[in-house]
Amino acid sequence: MDTSIKSFGSRDKLHKLKNKNSLFLCVIATTLTSRIPGITGAGASPELTDYTPAADVELILRGAPHCLPEIPQTVVEGEAAPTPAVITKAALEIAGIPFLVADAGSAIKPSIPYVNINHKQGGNIETGVAVNNPVEIFNKGKMLGKTLSKLTDHLIIGESTPAGTTTALGVLEALGYDAWGKVSGSTPENPHTLKRQTVETGLKAAGLADDIPLDPFQAVGVVGDPMIPAVAGITAGSKVPVTLAGGTQMTAICAFLKKAVEGFSFEDVSIATTIFVATDETADINYIAQQIAPINIYAVDPGFEKSENPGLQQYTQGVVKEGAGAGGAMLAAKLQGVSIDDIRAKTEDLCRKIF
Amino acid sequence: MDTSIKSFGSRDKLHKLKNKNSLFLCVIATTLTSRIPGITGAGASPELTDYTPAADVELILRGAPHCLPEIPQTVVEGEAAPTPAVITKAALEIAGIPFLVADAGSAIKPSIPYVNINHKQGGNIETGVAVNNPVEIFNKGKMLGKTLSKLTDHLIIGESTPAGTTTALGVLEALGYDAWGKVSGSTPENPHTLKRQTVETGLKAAGLADDIPLDPFQAVGVVGDPMIPAVAGITAGSKVPVTLAGGTQMTAICAFLKKAVEGFSFEDVSIATTIFVATDETADINYIAQQIAPINIYAVDPGFEKSENPGLQQYTQGVVKEGAGAGGAMLAAKLQGVSIDDIRAKTEDLCRKIF
Repeated sequence: MDTSIKSFGSRDKLHKLKNKNSLFLCVIATTLTSRIPGITGAGASPELTDYTPAADVELILRGAPHCLPEIPQTVVEGEAAPTPAVITKAALEIAGIPFLVADAGSAIKPSIPYVNINHKQGGNIETGVAVNNPVEIFNKGKMLGKTLSKLTDHLIIGESTPAGTTTALGVLEALGYDAWGKVSGSTPENPHTLKRQTVETGLKAAGLADDIPLDPFQAVGVVGDPMIPAVAGITAGSKVPVTLAGGTQMTAICAFLKKAVEGFSFEDVSIATTIFVATDETADINYIAQQIAPINIYAVDPGFEKSENPGLQQYTQGVVKEGAGAGGAMLAAKLQGVSIDDIRAKTEDLCRKIF
Repeated sequence: MDTSIKSFGSRDKLHKLKNKNSLFLCVIATTLTSRIPGITGAGASPELTDYTPAADVELILRGAPHCLPEIPQTVVEGEAAPTPAVITKAALEIAGIPFLVADAGSAIKPSIPYVNINHKQGGNIETGVAVNNPVEIFNKGKMLGKTLSKLTDHLIIGESTPAGTTTALGVLEALGYDAWGKVSGSTPENPHTLKRQTVETGLKAAGLADDIPLDPFQAVGVVGDPMIPAVAGITAGSKVPVTLAGGTQMTAICAFLKKAVEGFSFEDVSIATTIFVATDETADINYIAQQIAPINIYAVDPGFEKSENPGLQQYTQGVVKEGAGAGGAMLAAKLQGVSIDDIRAKTEDLCRKIF
C-alpha cells in the first residue's frame, strides 16, 4: 500500500483483502449520555446529537439528511467541520462498495431501509443503567454477522454513536483496562475529566465500582452503549475477515469480544481508522489496543492539509477526527485500487454539492 | 432442468441463472384483513395469523419460532399441514443460500435481525383504508433492491402475508384486471365469494368502485397490503434478475409494477411457485399473469405424494400450497444443482425434528 496508510501491529494482512468483494455496514445508536453538555461535538447541540446517526446514514445513502433540515457538523470556535459521513460516502461511491445500515438503538430512525437489531436507545451511563438487553443485542448481531458474511469476502463495520468514546471508556474501564485519558474525541479539547467523572459516577450508581473487572455484558449494561454488543456480535458471527472501522471506540469492541467469546481470535479482525485518531495527542489507541491483544490497526491519511475546503482542513486541527467508519471506508476503497487523492477530491466535491 | 420444474411462458431463462450466487429475501407483513373469519388458513385462529409471518422467518433462521409457542400449521378437517417455511428452510440450507428478512409492516416483529422497510401493519380492506404510506414503502423498497443487487447475481423474493391472496385480488381488481375467482388460497375450499365481497366492500367504502382502474398506489392504499409496494419497490430497484417467489399474490406485484414504473420490463423478472398453485383447480395464475405481460412462471413439484409425512401429503390435497417463498426457494436450490429428492428428504427430516 502507499504512504497514505500507516500500519500498527505485527502482521500486515491487507494483501489478503486486496480486490476482494467488500460490504460496508454502519451500525448506529444513540444514548442519553450524549445529552451531557460538553461531552461530544457530534451535533450542534446536546439534543441534536440524537439526530446525528440517522442524518449520517441518510446522507450516505440518499445524498442529504431527511430527519434534520441541516447536515451534521461539528462547530469549534465558529468554524464548521462536516460530518465524516461525507468521507465515507465519497470512498464507498468511488469504489462501488455496497452500504448497509443496522440500528442497534437509535432514538431517531433513518428514513432508509435499515436492519433492526435493537429498537431502544441507551440510557445516560451516569445512572448506571445503560443497556437493558446486551445479551439479546449480541445474539442478534451474531445472526446478522453470519448472514452478511455469506454475501461478501470482507466485512467493514463502521459506527455512528454520539458520545461513543465515553461509553467505550466505560466498558474498557469496567473490563479492567487502563484507558483513563486515552480515548479519542470529536473536539480538539478532549474533555477527559468529564468523561472519567461520567464513567465513575455510573459505576458507583450501579454499585459496581469495586467489582472490576465486570462481566462484559454487565459492563455494557451499566456504562456502555448498544452499539458495542451489536458490533461485537456481528464480528463474532462473521465467517470472513472483519475490519472494525472506527477509532478508540473499536478497542472497546475488542475488549468485549475477548471476554465474551471464549478463545476469540483476532487473527481476522483489524481496526481501521483515520490518521487524525492515530496521531491524536489527547488519546492513545495503540496503548489501549495492545493491552487487549496484538490487534492490527491501520490509519488512513486523506491528506486534508492539501484541501482548499476549510471544513476539511479543520480535521487536521483535531476537529471530528473520525466517525461513520470514515477511516475504514477509505481503507476499503484503497483495497479496490482507488487513490487517496481521488477520495479527497470526491469528498471535496460532495462538500461543495451538499453544504 | 428436470421434470420437477414446469415452465409457463415463452422464454425459459433459467439457464442464465444456473450456479450463480443467489440471495433469498422474505418480505413479511400482516393486515387486519386476515382477521376476517374464514378468509385464510395461515394460522390456527384469525388472531394467530398476526404471528404467522414472524414465526415463519424465525423458524427458517433459528429452527424454531420464538414469538409463538407453536409452529404455524394449517388445520383442515383435523389434519395439520406444516407451514411452507419448512420447505423454504430445507431448500435454502441444503443449497447454502443466504436468507434475509424485510418487514413491510408485520404486527408481530420476529426475534431475528430484519430489514425495516415499514413498521405498521395494514388495515382491513373492508374499510377501504389499507396502507397509508404506499409511496414511502415503494421508495424504501427501491433503495433496498438497489443495495441487495450489489451483493448477489440473483435476487429471490418470497413473502409471508396472511390473507395475502385477498389483498392481491383487491389490487388486481382495482387495477382493472379480471381476477375474480382466479386467486389461489391456503385451503382446498377457496372462499372466492368471501374474498370478492371483501374487496367489493372495500372499494365501495373508499368511494372508488366506479373509478377503476385506479392509480397503483391508490389501489394498494385502499384494498392492498404493505407487502405489495415493498416487493414491487425491491424488484424495481434491483439491477440483477429477480424471481418473485410466490403464487397468485406475485401477479399483483407485476400488475403494480407495470402501472407504477413507466416502461417497466419483465425481461429479468419471473415468478416461481409450487406445483400446488400452478395446478390449483380453484385458481388460475397463468390467466391473471398473461393479462399483465408475458411473464415467465416456473412451478416446482416437491413430489410430496411420495412422502410418508401425512402433513406434507396434505399439500397434494390443496392444503397450504405455497408461502414463505417455498416454490422459489426450491427453484433456487435446483439452480445450485440440488435434487428435488434431496429437498423433499430434508423437508421431511426438518418436520421430524421440529414438530
